[in-house]
Amino acid sequence: MIITKPTLLLDRSKFEKNVDNMTQKAEENNVIFRPHFKTHQSLELAEYFKSKGIDKITVSSVTMAEYFASGGWKDITIAFPFNILEIQKVNDMLDQKFKINLLVESLETMTFIIRHVKKACDIYIKIDTGNHRTGISADEKSTIQENISLIESSHHKFKGFIVHAGHTYDAGNFDEICNINRRTIKKLSELKEIKGAENALISVGDTPSCSLARNFEGIDEIRPGNFVFYDLMQAKIGSCDFDQIAVSVACPVVAKHYDRNEIVVYCGAVHLSKDYIIHENEKCYGFCVEYNNDMTWHNPSAYTFMRKLSQEHGIIKSTRNVLDHTKIGDIIGVIPVHSCLTADNYSHYTALSGKKIQKMRAM
Amino acid sequence: MIITKPTLLLDRSKFEKNVDNMTQKAEENNVIFRPHFKTHQSLELAEYFKSKGIDKITVSSVTMAEYFASGGWKDITIAFPFNILEIQKVNDMLDQKFKINLLVESLETMTFIIRHVKKACDIYIKIDTGNHRTGISADEKSTIQENISLIESSHHKFKGFIVHAGHTYDAGNFDEICNINRRTIKKLSELKEIKGAENALISVGDTPSCSLARNFEGIDEIRPGNFVFYDLMQAKIGSCDFDQIAVSVACPVVAKHYDRNEIVVYCGAVHLSKDYIIHENEKCYGFCVEYNNDMTWHNPSAYTFMRKLSQEHGIIKSTRNVLDHTKIGDIIGVIPVHSCLTADNYSHYTALSGKKIQKMRAM
Repeated sequence: MIITKPTLLLDRSKFEKNVDNMTQKAEENNVIFRPHFKTHQSLELAEYFKSKGIDKITVSSVTMAEYFASGGWKDITIAFPFNILEIQKVNDMLDQKFKINLLVESLETMTFIIRHVKKACDIYIKIDTGNHRTGISADEKSTIQENISLIESSHHKFKGFIVHAGHTYDAGNFDEICNINRRTIKKLSELKEIKGAENALISVGDTPSCSLARNFEGIDEIRPGNFVFYDLMQAKIGSCDFDQIAVSVACPVVAKHYDRNEIVVYCGAVHLSKDYIIHENEKCYGFCVEYNNDMTWHNPSAYTFMRKLSQEHGIIKSTRNVLDHTKIGDIIGVIPVHSCLTADNYSHYTALSGKKIQKMRAM
Repeated sequence: MIITKPTLLLDRSKFEKNVDNMTQKAEENNVIFRPHFKTHQSLELAEYFKSKGIDKITVSSVTMAEYFASGGWKDITIAFPFNILEIQKVNDMLDQKFKINLLVESLETMTFIIRHVKKACDIYIKIDTGNHRTGISADEKSTIQENISLIESSHHKFKGFIVHAGHTYDAGNFDEICNINRRTIKKLSELKEIKGAENALISVGDTPSCSLARNFEGIDEIRPGNFVFYDLMQAKIGSCDFDQIAVSVACPVVAKHYDRNEIVVYCGAVHLSKDYIIHENEKCYGFCVEYNNDMTWHNPSAYTFMRKLSQEHGIIKSTRNVLDHTKIGDIIGVIPVHSCLTADNYSHYTALSGKKIQKMRAM
């Protein structure tokens, strides 16, 4: 394969293995698998899920729902507090017989939906179990009750409780993630005591919990997204092994600086995104890898990582030894810190064979 | 104008004023104005520069050079250490009579250019005056001399010294920026003592210096880019007033949380980018503004800012009073921290009239 500029490489066999693992885990635990497609955003990659019998999906915007609807996906949960300004597009999809499941967290939005969404929808209530991004606090049982009553008084159907326990990303290790997961399930289970919620579906969604949990008791549906590729952040908190990460950005070397053991690559913030982890007391925007002849990659050294990004420049901190073996015009791989944001920058993936795999771009 | 999802708004009159100011400053100080187009990346906005008599430009990639060449720009400096892997595209542009000026910082790359770039180019030597992103240190006079000799032994022409004093971005205030600028010019001026460099053009490029300097003695060419829009980072270090910032992202309100005075908007990291400043001891990803009827904006309160971003969610920290006056479905504006990265996420700007202004997207 000829690479001349920053290129998002996808190791499809790792992607398929990650999908297989999660599909099997869902089957074994008897939970509905409704994968979140916000990470890969690709109809072509989505086909692999179809081949595994998956027919329910999650997306994070109306635009993404339209994109996947165009690829024949019929049962789509928009896991984002419903944006009432996009009502027309939702009504259009419902008119075309798509099953669109919405998420609400306020009486204000619910009232709007009842008034303006003509066809019946399944409605999830968004619950906050400690992440504090959004959702009704699991402690506010009377507010939750009011929302359920409002849904049930309408032509829509109360589907269940949905949560994104994103605070697992701040967890340091396996035990902490599992503890957060246990507390999340306990809080959600208690909500079933609310009138009208006896048969509520319990839907959880973060990749760390879904990757690490051994027990899914009390859960009906899982919606992980990032697991398709994983990334450095997930490896750091223990959701995956480094070898499971399915994407890397291939970057041309344009300069070397021996005085500070740095390599400058054509690969900046616009190619990687600016999420970082702390590594050796420094910001780290990605770990570097070397490519084999078949474009699979291996980790050359933990001392070689992306320490700085400007718009198009990447500054790799490395060692004298790596510099000696690196020439201007070589290609260095970078494993992203947050693959969702990295992938969002591109219009396509490049498979290790060189084949382009198209994806959506929202804006 | 009807806004239903995150939208990058451009106040064209502010943009034009920013361009007018810098054009006038360059004229008054008798320096060549070679604006960097990496920030706006738009042929349509570039036309405004043309109307002001500008005919020399700067870009940060070969792809961007091709894009602007397609719009009739003939004299293009690629202000990035030359990526030897894109040699073919550069030769193609040269064959089509474009004047492409390249930037080198190593004998390795220069040797490659001499061997593979057939048509004559003007070559800048990239100098590092303290930013330490890349470039030959201004102290390494013998290396600089070797590079000049190598260029002069070839069919190419040594054009001058180019520097990006990006460390002005770490400066806290006007005085510090001006001090860095003075030291930069002093170092560059000393390089003219090198044999063959007597007539070297001195080209500088950072927006803070170009915005604040009152004296351009010793400088022949300026290449600012960000000044077309400015942003919160520039306002914070004093390069511009808040009112000069020409872009904002219009975001739909999807939820409110009174317990923590937060507003959730549909506008995440993929719409804003994750560059931040520290504000009130917290990470701040943008200041919020209110829109007037004509979609110009004003600042409602310094206490309302973007404190957290996930892929599509933005969490705005605000006050009880602002929450009381904000409804789900309202549009809140966010002034980006780093407009270059924000703009890079979009395929177009939306003028305040609602008109779309197309731009390039590299990947």
